[in-house]
Amino acid sequence: MGKAKRPKLSTHEFFEKGHLHYLTHISIDNVIFGFHDNQLKVLLLEWKETHRWCLPGGFIFADEHIEEAAIRSLKSRTGLDNIYLQQFYAFGDPNRERTKHGISPPAGIKKSWLSERFITVGYYALVEFSKVVPKPDEFSESCQWWDIEKVPTLILDHNHILEKALQSLRLNLNDYPVGKDLLPQKFTMPELQRLYETILGKQLDRRNFQKKILALDILERLNERKQGGAHKAPFLYKFDQRKYEKAMKQGLKFGLQ
Amino acid sequence: MGKAKRPKLSTHEFFEKGHLHYLTHISIDNVIFGFHDNQLKVLLLEWKETHRWCLPGGFIFADEHIEEAAIRSLKSRTGLDNIYLQQFYAFGDPNRERTKHGISPPAGIKKSWLSERFITVGYYALVEFSKVVPKPDEFSESCQWWDIEKVPTLILDHNHILEKALQSLRLNLNDYPVGKDLLPQKFTMPELQRLYETILGKQLDRRNFQKKILALDILERLNERKQGGAHKAPFLYKFDQRKYEKAMKQGLKFGLQ
Repeated sequence: MGKAKRPKLSTHEFFEKGHLHYLTHISIDNVIFGFHDNQLKVLLLEWKETHRWCLPGGFIFADEHIEEAAIRSLKSRTGLDNIYLQQFYAFGDPNRERTKHGISPPAGIKKSWLSERFITVGYYALVEFSKVVPKPDEFSESCQWWDIEKVPTLILDHNHILEKALQSLRLNLNDYPVGKDLLPQKFTMPELQRLYETILGKQLDRRNFQKKILALDILERLNERKQGGAHKAPFLYKFDQRKYEKAMKQGLKFGLQ
Repeated sequence: MGKAKRPKLSTHEFFEKGHLHYLTHISIDNVIFGFHDNQLKVLLLEWKETHRWCLPGGFIFADEHIEEAAIRSLKSRTGLDNIYLQQFYAFGDPNRERTKHGISPPAGIKKSWLSERFITVGYYALVEFSKVVPKPDEFSESCQWWDIEKVPTLILDHNHILEKALQSLRLNLNDYPVGKDLLPQKFTMPELQRLYETILGKQLDRRNFQKKILALDILERLNERKQGGAHKAPFLYKFDQRKYEKAMKQGLKFGLQ
């Protein structure tokens, strides 16, 4: 397998000859999380004709780094660059064959590399909801945000992949900060708490949360209060850029470390 | 690709026809950690003729779960069953081609699936050193334990894979207990501390460690002391089986959670 060209393939060509350009048996899937109206959301694609939903994914060119493939896919669905993307798991159930799940190649194609078994590597991304312009690909009818609790039955093992992404994100909360790509630049403590609560899927004690999150030493309290609320206006915070990036590299050093 | 048979292939057949039985472009690599003489060790294979060292890995049968492939490889190198195996990362650099690193198929084979690019999924295992009987495979000269700090230059990106396994293990110390498969059934607090220190690669404060590790509520102090030391004999501990397993499933709930 030589250096791959990156041609524009028609759907027919993609099914019939894609294996000459992409690696066979291995794909990526992106779980793209956004936060809006105090609600964690995930970006899904709707397949043409079938009206079945799936995670946006893609294939890896023969000379492409797997992470580049994930970034390329993310960019083509959201329009966004420079997004925090985290590989979380490779899914290798032998049942991962499209034909076993009623997904056939287009009419006229007997044999396709896409009908064989694929192992897929999952990445999750945290994006600023307001900046995304969801864009379907050539195989899909639509691309839209779904509330995490309202996600329908997805194709293949995509519900399982989503669940695992959420678990990984939850575990990562212990090790890495979260919020910079999900919240506006200035935010209140209740907004940050609500983000953690929606990721963890449970309520947190207000005092305890504030104490622990401030102890991470990644926040800066501004001399500004949020306008427009009925109650006493809460202070605004922002992330300390330098400390946040350091924590993203070195981890938060909770617990035993 | 139909249901795969699991034939015994000669080396020649493996290079020439392995792609009829195994998935192409995707492999697994196992980082097998053991603990002995207060030292973290890793199990490595030495390739025949080249005297170059590598991680023990393997390929995935067409109808085999990727995790089964990792377990099968682990068992064939160590003789061990029921080992804690943790997937930690998929390595997808386009440079991962054996031929780019001076590893050619045996004489007489012009084209082999093994010369193409492979993405590999890394697993790490924690095993009880004393129970392992290291066993080379048909391609390797020897299989032996190396001190973590003395590992030589490995083939392909295997040094990087090892480093990433160690990082994952370190991060996991915050989320999951460690020790049950690495220590004898009864152990002292200094022995447990030394295990954490060797994984983390740094010294820990004795009082702080003891306080934090006891707070996890997974240890049981026995009414027994270690025999034979010159100083005051330290108490022996063992893991509370039920609590340990619960923590392995649910995580340790450090930090914000």
